[in-house]
Amino acid sequence: MKTPIKVGILGATGYAGAELVRLLAGHPMAKVSAVGSVSFEGKKLSEVYPAYRGLCDLTCMQQDAVIEESDAVFAALPHGLSQDIAEKCDQAGKLFIDLGADFRLQEESEYHAWYGGDYRFPELHARAVYGLPELFREEIRGKRIIANPGCYTTAVPLALVPALQNGLIQPDGIIADCKSGVTGAGRGLAQNLHYAECSGSFTAYKVAAHRHTPEIEQTLSKISGQKITMTFVPHLLPVNRGILATCYARLAPGVTMETLREVYTQAYGGETFLRLLPEGSVANIRNVWYSNYCDLSLHLDLRAGLLIAVSAIDNMVKGAAGQAIQNMNLAMGIEETAGLQLVPPAF
Amino acid sequence: MKTPIKVGILGATGYAGAELVRLLAGHPMAKVSAVGSVSFEGKKLSEVYPAYRGLCDLTCMQQDAVIEESDAVFAALPHGLSQDIAEKCDQAGKLFIDLGADFRLQEESEYHAWYGGDYRFPELHARAVYGLPELFREEIRGKRIIANPGCYTTAVPLALVPALQNGLIQPDGIIADCKSGVTGAGRGLAQNLHYAECSGSFTAYKVAAHRHTPEIEQTLSKISGQKITMTFVPHLLPVNRGILATCYARLAPGVTMETLREVYTQAYGGETFLRLLPEGSVANIRNVWYSNYCDLSLHLDLRAGLLIAVSAIDNMVKGAAGQAIQNMNLAMGIEETAGLQLVPPAF
Amino acid sequence: MKTPIKVGILGATGYAGAELVRLLAGHPMAKVSAVGSVSFEGKKLSEVYPAYRGLCDLTCMQQDAVIEESDAVFAALPHGLSQDIAEKCDQAGKLFIDLGADFRLQEESEYHAWYGGDYRFPELHARAVYGLPELFREEIRGKRIIANPGCYTTAVPLALVPALQNGLIQPDGIIADCKSGVTGAGRGLAQNLHYAECSGSFTAYKVAAHRHTPEIEQTLSKISGQKITMTFVPHLLPVNRGILATCYARLAPGVTMETLREVYTQAYGGETFLRLLPEGSVANIRNVWYSNYCDLSLHLDLRAGLLIAVSAIDNMVKGAAGQAIQNMNLAMGIEETAGLQLVPPAF
Amino acid sequence: MKTPIKVGILGATGYAGAELVRLLAGHPMAKVSAVGSVSFEGKKLSEVYPAYRGLCDLTCMQQDAVIEESDAVFAALPHGLSQDIAEKCDQAGKLFIDLGADFRLQEESEYHAWYGGDYRFPELHARAVYGLPELFREEIRGKRIIANPGCYTTAVPLALVPALQNGLIQPDGIIADCKSGVTGAGRGLAQNLHYAECSGSFTAYKVAAHRHTPEIEQTLSKISGQKITMTFVPHLLPVNRGILATCYARLAPGVTMETLREVYTQAYGGETFLRLLPEGSVANIRNVWYSNYCDLSLHLDLRAGLLIAVSAIDNMVKGAAGQAIQNMNLAMGIEETAGLQLVPPAF
Repeated sequence: MKTPIKVGILGATGYAGAELVRLLAGHPMAKVSAVGSVSFEGKKLSEVYPAYRGLCDLTCMQQDAVIEESDAVFAALPHGLSQDIAEKCDQAGKLFIDLGADFRLQEESEYHAWYGGDYRFPELHARAVYGLPELFREEIRGKRIIANPGCYTTAVPLALVPALQNGLIQPDGIIADCKSGVTGAGRGLAQNLHYAECSGSFTAYKVAAHRHTPEIEQTLSKISGQKITMTFVPHLLPVNRGILATCYARLAPGVTMETLREVYTQAYGGETFLRLLPEGSVANIRNVWYSNYCDLSLHLDLRAGLLIAVSAIDNMVKGAAGQAIQNMNLAMGIEETAGLQLVPPAF
Repeated sequence: MKTPIKVGILGATGYAGAELVRLLAGHPMAKVSAVGSVSFEGKKLSEVYPAYRGLCDLTCMQQDAVIEESDAVFAALPHGLSQDIAEKCDQAGKLFIDLGADFRLQEESEYHAWYGGDYRFPELHARAVYGLPELFREEIRGKRIIANPGCYTTAVPLALVPALQNGLIQPDGIIADCKSGVTGAGRGLAQNLHYAECSGSFTAYKVAAHRHTPEIEQTLSKISGQKITMTFVPHLLPVNRGILATCYARLAPGVTMETLREVYTQAYGGETFLRLLPEGSVANIRNVWYSNYCDLSLHLDLRAGLLIAVSAIDNMVKGAAGQAIQNMNLAMGIEETAGLQLVPPAF
Repeated sequence: MKTPIKVGILGATGYAGAELVRLLAGHPMAKVSAVGSVSFEGKKLSEVYPAYRGLCDLTCMQQDAVIEESDAVFAALPHGLSQDIAEKCDQAGKLFIDLGADFRLQEESEYHAWYGGDYRFPELHARAVYGLPELFREEIRGKRIIANPGCYTTAVPLALVPALQNGLIQPDGIIADCKSGVTGAGRGLAQNLHYAECSGSFTAYKVAAHRHTPEIEQTLSKISGQKITMTFVPHLLPVNRGILATCYARLAPGVTMETLREVYTQAYGGETFLRLLPEGSVANIRNVWYSNYCDLSLHLDLRAGLLIAVSAIDNMVKGAAGQAIQNMNLAMGIEETAGLQLVPPAF
Repeated sequence: MKTPIKVGILGATGYAGAELVRLLAGHPMAKVSAVGSVSFEGKKLSEVYPAYRGLCDLTCMQQDAVIEESDAVFAALPHGLSQDIAEKCDQAGKLFIDLGADFRLQEESEYHAWYGGDYRFPELHARAVYGLPELFREEIRGKRIIANPGCYTTAVPLALVPALQNGLIQPDGIIADCKSGVTGAGRGLAQNLHYAECSGSFTAYKVAAHRHTPEIEQTLSKISGQKITMTFVPHLLPVNRGILATCYARLAPGVTMETLREVYTQAYGGETFLRLLPEGSVANIRNVWYSNYCDLSLHLDLRAGLLIAVSAIDNMVKGAAGQAIQNMNLAMGIEETAGLQLVPPAF
């Protein structure tokens, strides 16, 4: 290969950052050039993750050094920290992909309401693009600041957009009942994530109060051309990987499964990472483990007049690191699927 | 104790039957007198379940012998097999509690539609009572044929009834997104329950087509005095025990959390096995493991005008064997909670 | 029942303490009168463990108040804290059962070497008894200070003692390869117990360097009447409950399975909680979950001249809280099995 | 790449076969040309494993058709079926790699004793090579019939060989206490692999009577130049992937950790897939998930004079499919690590 893209990862010791390292090891046109971590500065990444011994033994560096060493910078950091980094990358002419929330919401007021901060570089926000390639591919190509969507905010829109965009479902009353594996909660220790208490548990959390709500609504509103309010309830699954989104929407009059499948097939037929399952199958998180695929199945409750769309992704890959690489590929003008064609292990 | 109630269990080697054995071992006024199994006739129960060695070494017998040996007969059998047994028990003057579906649906047409059989003893069906004590306690006392509800059909009504009965939610458009542990699928081998394929999996099944739908609707209709149609989507959780029911219903105008909590407190305040959680807590299946408790939490999505009621039970206890014992206690006129006050292990 | 024994639990919010609460709730002659916790003083136990809501809502108190309220005091605390408590209990004439290590080792030098402290009340140590009822029952009756064995130190001796005591195995070269569920590591948060990193992991730890080594050796030495040195390697299993001890010992010349089974049957035939499995069966932690049973199977490798004895216990019950209650029963002169006859759930 | 090697997989719907498909999808110089299955003939592989949808949609064919379509044939079949296939491949000039047991044992008598069959093509057996590259690399190059080792039989010898070969341990009295994830038991349904009964279980099986015993002994004997008899006890772990082998061997007089580490470093320093961990670390199956790595840690029990060597592999990769590909690479004269440098996911 010609000179590979040098990729720097900030927050490399968190789960999204570490997953970027895993995936980029198999990328034919990019390589990890530097990793950053505040908590583990000076330590090798493979000391934090012994699984990576011999495969990524880079030493965690400070932010500026990481940016210096890179053509593309990925930040997998707590919200609020990415704006300065974006500005630095912009000055230095580097691609910046933010896996956090700082550039996802177009309305500063919503960011302020849900995250409590301000937009300090409105010009950067204006140029930032929302990186959900299956929906906004053309906007992403060649861009320099990309807001990588959250995990739920990938799974829910992918399940509903073709129906919504084509008027097959009502825009109000949408409910997304979502279930996520524990890696979505990150590496930080917590009692409810302690194995002995997490094992065998299952509960909802932040019921109708999760920060991904405005982000999902933003995507659905943009697609449908009207302000959409929906209900989002996340649950925590005692598994490592995966999000299953069970989405309920009232059908427009007369809509049949045939029509729905036509519209979804048209929307996603050319997509590598979107697998519309045949009728009778149901999406299962097991089938997308460790991969960038989104599986999607469609169901009707004709007695109640509902579309029930079920999507499954790996929250760490299509819901974070994999999608970020897909965005990098698009932004850099290389093959969109490069480095991402890992086969999900079936067991 | 005075002479204990002699309990016979048909289908004792299935999960619900075996759970009855476990729970009855701690019952102060009853003891397992005989166990039946077609597949394992002649084998000791403790050969099938080595966990029971020394604790229940009864040998599996034929149906008639089990009935003969018992004051109360529990059947945990595939549907279609209970009607004859009920008739025999009735003739012999024994209490019959059916953990299967044969006596749950009042309308024979619905039974026919969902299960494919007929009601051969209409008179028995007329006398059968639906054994959900928190909702129908007075009807159960002293009865001789009791249809023990299914697991989902316990969890969903308990979450919604007080709101529905008091007109705090709209009777249409109710959605129950439910998640069940694998013991709900029984002991029969299946590829999707093979550890290597079940582990880490999560999916919906029988989407809007599960047999518990008419049963839930029957209870909600009876309570509300009107025909209710609702949407029910079950999912399979990779854990052994537990059902979490996340129920969505549109609020009647002006309903507040305060009103809701008042009504639920009034309905369930005196219930031993129903724990209404304080505001801010969310029901979790881990907290009811191996116990007869139903935990319940209430949440509002005020932007969408929804009540979100979340209930958690152990599908094998409150959702099957425990509730059956609760029904026996009521029918026999002994302390309703006898044998059922096991503390859920916290880990 | 007559006036129940009032039991106080120090360290009630740790796993062993919380398990005592669960088990004592079903004890016919004892009840938890007070719970102590440094970290959660002033909080209800059911706030720490919502599973206990309505079942144990006692408020965590300071140590002295707990002792004051109790006839019997159980301490489930980090080592080093129990000596003062033992002294207080002794002064106040209360039974003291220590689930920690402070009174387990007879030789102060060994305690000093492995735990780093001194014996400040030699007279109390002299009166303390080691509470492994199946081996030292008569010594325990009526005693006032009882050192409850650790989990591994229960599982390993129970597997080997009859063979050792009868000269059927060589006293040197014994190896115990043990595997424990994560509750054995306690409630404290740690990265290797974080669900996402513990799930699917399996490793050895403190290889040939675990503090239970001298305690196992002490028991084996006492039984055999000679100083025994053995090899102990613990592993961490990604399950909540259970220890499996696979013990290897060289057979004395001419020993057959028949002889071994005779000797074990004689030793354990009258024991409620010790289940010697039939030939061909292997002990499995699943069969003793949440119960006080120890399952034991015997195997020979005749080519190598080895006895392979496999024992399984629930580390939280027979390995901690259950055995402590068994000791209390013995010390108090009540039925040894009271409160402990829970049937292990088979699934 | 130039024309890829065409690989045919017999038994493609079993776990080892399916894992070959997953790994070969990322191989730069090979591609799966045909898949065979008796049970699913005529079905697409992606119907059996929906995880593979769009990635391997080949239709399962009969054996002869698979051989016809391939340059290299992998058989992942029950023992007894590979001899005829080997003969066919040999006639047709194709590389044959057997993931079963038919060519692993040099002594026909041992095969007969443990598997019950005969060697029908002695000439093929004479030419077959045992494919454990780290030990027998040079023998494998260019060969046409390769017996791929079993999973335990990879993990145990890799842990012990350098010490044994250099006389640092005694050749008698070796014990390997091994623990394997459930994929090692295959895809066939069984009660002990039913999720509800496997979850939380842990037990030994085939204690000192497992078929991998003679195979391990064969490798150790060949390496050490003397007949070795050892003790092998496998256990079943409730996780999908991984083998941990805890191996005990008596140290030769005067052997220190320093000497051991020198010898192991010399033996494995140049190996890509063998990672000797630094002192103080312990091998963990989590760190090799889904990868071809073998992690290895060394420990001493100086009181007992033992080496305790702990190795970890993924039983499906280094213990089956990955090693088979490594053997193909060697036999075909291409880069040994081609297609195998997947990074183990850290969570």
